[in-house]
Amino acid sequence: MLVGPGDDAAVLAPVRNERLVVTTDAVVEGVHFSRASFAPADIGHKALAVNLSDLAAMAATPQWALLSLQLPADWPVAAVEEIVDGVTALAVRFGVSVVGGNITRTPGPLAVDITLGGTVASRRWLTRSGAVAGDEIWVSGTLGGAKAGLEMMTAPGSPSPDPVCAARQRRPEPRVRLGVAMGRARAARAAMDLSDGLADAVRQVAQASGCGARLDASALPIEPDAQSWWQAQGVDPVTAAIVGGEDYELLFAVPKRGGGRLRNARRHVADPALTRIGVFVKDPGVLVVDRGGREDALPAGYEHFENR
Amino acid sequence: MLVGPGDDAAVLAPVRNERLVVTTDAVVEGVHFSRASFAPADIGHKALAVNLSDLAAMAATPQWALLSLQLPADWPVAAVEEIVDGVTALAVRFGVSVVGGNITRTPGPLAVDITLGGTVASRRWLTRSGAVAGDEIWVSGTLGGAKAGLEMMTAPGSPSPDPVCAARQRRPEPRVRLGVAMGRARAARAAMDLSDGLADAVRQVAQASGCGARLDASALPIEPDAQSWWQAQGVDPVTAAIVGGEDYELLFAVPKRGGGRLRNARRHVADPALTRIGVFVKDPGVLVVDRGGREDALPAGYEHFENR
Repeated sequence: MLVGPGDDAAVLAPVRNERLVVTTDAVVEGVHFSRASFAPADIGHKALAVNLSDLAAMAATPQWALLSLQLPADWPVAAVEEIVDGVTALAVRFGVSVVGGNITRTPGPLAVDITLGGTVASRRWLTRSGAVAGDEIWVSGTLGGAKAGLEMMTAPGSPSPDPVCAARQRRPEPRVRLGVAMGRARAARAAMDLSDGLADAVRQVAQASGCGARLDASALPIEPDAQSWWQAQGVDPVTAAIVGGEDYELLFAVPKRGGGRLRNARRHVADPALTRIGVFVKDPGVLVVDRGGREDALPAGYEHFENR
Repeated sequence: MLVGPGDDAAVLAPVRNERLVVTTDAVVEGVHFSRASFAPADIGHKALAVNLSDLAAMAATPQWALLSLQLPADWPVAAVEEIVDGVTALAVRFGVSVVGGNITRTPGPLAVDITLGGTVASRRWLTRSGAVAGDEIWVSGTLGGAKAGLEMMTAPGSPSPDPVCAARQRRPEPRVRLGVAMGRARAARAAMDLSDGLADAVRQVAQASGCGARLDASALPIEPDAQSWWQAQGVDPVTAAIVGGEDYELLFAVPKRGGGRLRNARRHVADPALTRIGVFVKDPGVLVVDRGGREDALPAGYEHFENR
């Protein structure tokens, strides 16, 4: 950076021949986290992770971040430093510089708002609108873990949460390298991250692309640590995997017979496996097909699930 | 823009040979504005104006903005649209595109957090740290009006506020063209905007530049509409002009005998007059010199003034 934190703004040298990609997302106490369930460093991690996930979904390489904090009077300075440490630790792992920011007091809850900038080569970015009927739907990692972690942490009288599910909730791992590799290899025609759940993402990509989708229920990569817990709660793990949000995995529309490019993209990336979970189709609407071949409408999103 | 609002991030084409300049600043209900004194469009205007002022202080041309809203449940949709309209109206005037953003609910107050990006030619940006002992201190426009406007609006039983001072508070006019012109003409060695008042800005520029400053009290361009009001309140208008914040004027360090470049910078800019108000000096510390030649330490900043 040419001018960093401490001045009215930061000055950066753009990367030659690359496009600029920018996104902003906030986490707010009482909405996205609670002090009871999140350490300050978890809050910092998550605030940056959700933005890294957005850039990954565009196939962009993150580079710089601006950190905007709204700070209640009762947050001690040490906790603020831990929040910043949580941001910085994740930033360093992905080569992101925190180039500036802003702190203001607030009479309300703690809020951490991060703006993330990065770059992508010309015509290598991925949007939500590029899917074509016939494209396969692939998703990274596992589903339903973050939502299970949240319920485990907040259910009254619940035992200590499963560590895998709790980590999925507190410390989501953005699929930055996978997103970039998929864009570079031209392995996908569309992408989106699963911030609000699989149902939401499939619906949004289908709508933006002017098509529909069919999901194969039996193919969904349900988080193993969440599966038995969902069953014990009387919740169908498939439904939980479809509508549970905050997994921050990536969804891709991959052209049929695109396996070669997909393998190229995967070659040097340590991010978890991709699973084929369905197909985009011509008819609008999103259906879930169960093992017996029975079709059902996609369950409504996160909010509905919240009210079960 | 190549990809605009509605996707995971925005994609922009960088400007050839220009540097990227980014800043972020939030306005929070109960801290920076109240619903009683600000219309929703005022809030949107001010949220963008404070960021435009930061970029102006870097001599950068603004280009794009990301708008992050934290929305309490009791703000009606129509008010949200008016906030966005307030942002957009000001953005259009300065050629800024709102390329994306984010809305989240909050259990707390309304907060509008804007990230602003722009460009500046190589080595044409202005920082706080470039002043040299002997440089003249110049300031744009008038001082003390925004703080007077705030006190007029919030004092119990006060008559309707003076429209000029109220507008200075609700609708600050960022000195974008002036900042850019000063950078292009190489007319200044350092710059900062007056978000937290003149005292704060002079002190910050002096400290960052490793020098001190002497302000000429009789030269200060006190806002005429505020002057008699301050006197009626028993407040010295000079003190009000020095410590009252939120005027969002620009302060510059101008080299001695730099009048030619200063005139060049001013030639095509409609922003208000610049006034020479003092000089940066070798000895650290900031002094105010009154008409009789008596030197006083600079009054403490905004916070102290608040507690008068």
